Amino acid sequence: MTKLRVDIWSDIACPWCYVGKARFDKAVERLDGKVDVEVRHRSFELDPDRAPGDVDAVVPMIAKKYGISPAQAQANEYKLGDLAKAEGLDYRSEGRDHGNTFDLHRLLHLASARGVEAEVWSAFYAANFADEASIFERDRVIEVSVAAGLDRDEVVAVLDDPEAYKAEVRADEAEAAALGATGVPFFVIDEKYGVSGAQPTDLFAEILEKAWGEKKPAITPITGAEDAEACGPDGCPI
Amino acid sequence: MTKLRVDIWSDIACPWCYVGKARFDKAVERLDGKVDVEVRHRSFELDPDRAPGDVDAVVPMIAKKYGISPAQAQANEYKLGDLAKAEGLDYRSEGRDHGNTFDLHRLLHLASARGVEAEVWSAFYAANFADEASIFERDRVIEVSVAAGLDRDEVVAVLDDPEAYKAEVRADEAEAAALGATGVPFFVIDEKYGVSGAQPTDLFAEILEKAWGEKKPAITPITGAEDAEACGPDGCPI
Repeated sequence: MTKLRVDIWSDIACPWCYVGKARFDKAVERLDGKVDVEVRHRSFELDPDRAPGDVDAVVPMIAKKYGISPAQAQANEYKLGDLAKAEGLDYRSEGRDHGNTFDLHRLLHLASARGVEAEVWSAFYAANFADEASIFERDRVIEVSVAAGLDRDEVVAVLDDPEAYKAEVRADEAEAAALGATGVPFFVIDEKYGVSGAQPTDLFAEILEKAWGEKKPAITPITGAEDAEACGPDGCPI
Repeated sequence: MTKLRVDIWSDIACPWCYVGKARFDKAVERLDGKVDVEVRHRSFELDPDRAPGDVDAVVPMIAKKYGISPAQAQANEYKLGDLAKAEGLDYRSEGRDHGNTFDLHRLLHLASARGVEAEVWSAFYAANFADEASIFERDRVIEVSVAAGLDRDEVVAVLDDPEAYKAEVRADEAEAAALGATGVPFFVIDEKYGVSGAQPTDLFAEILEKAWGEKKPAITPITGAEDAEACGPDGCPI
């Protein structure tokens, strides 16, 4: 009611999502006390067809994918690292891994259900982009999840059951497709405005303020069948 | 995005809230697969000025409050019991207690943060209206909370710290006042329609369908500064 809902589709393996989220967060921080924002993580897999155990080093994977030299691919990683650092984020430009993120998305839905979505989301980003240990190792995923506030037994149970939170991930992806989102990050402000890409903080701030200003404060009262069936400070008339 | 948000202001000590919630839940059930509803509990205290330890038996309290005989007050409780039973709810018409519900509201906010709001809400209702043990006893509150999925240490910590989740309860109450709600249950459908009282299931179903039909499926794309700063299936252009 008093909050502006923002749905953010993204992938933990997506550098622009990592950078874009930081830019968005700064806009929210800038509007603190002025616009009350409620963020929801939504799942989008960049590489859904990759097998779960199939992990590649980012640089040769990128080189092969774009048909560029490993040196050029490495240069791209340095550029991304500089952009991340400009937002105050750590970024390990050398030796990162790339893999299937389906399990991470399922755990993010567990985190949403347990009230620690923001913590786990941020921890997964840091683990993927800044830490030396690979987030695509099961033990590391468990370690990071637990440190961010999830219950170890629940994390293991989700990892062991490929159906757990699968429907939630698929529903998010279907909705992204229905909204026409073909890449991430993809932000939807107040179920109303769609913003694609790691836009500058200024643009996020502008659209958040605009959507906030347009939020209807008034609600329409519905006249029901028997108005008396309510309790108030004076009691509960029957 | 795909869900219809419903905010329900209510109090655990409110019989019409207990009955109204059941009627509302049946409307949601009836529309299963057709309308996707996301419910949020919002706090409203019927008797906020009552001291935390001040617990009365309902029947003499009602008799005194309305200036009616204890027999008439008891008859009201039987009527409420019949209405509850008509909705499939248990109701103990004799010997219920009434007290301050501030702690229960604080625990409901803890439950929302931990992803077990529906379970704790329903368990508190059952404990207040159907069980012989009084929900206004600390040990009973802890027992019911833990059985509904909350962590015992967290429950005790919230009960021991009167500031815990106080701001959330007060914010809900301030918002109810701002919306002009003077009694409960008070339902707000999709931040748009206000419904007061334990309305019939048919009315809830009608307004849920109406609000669902009005939900805008389309979002307005915002053209940002640099459209390319996103990752897609083909990679992350820099």
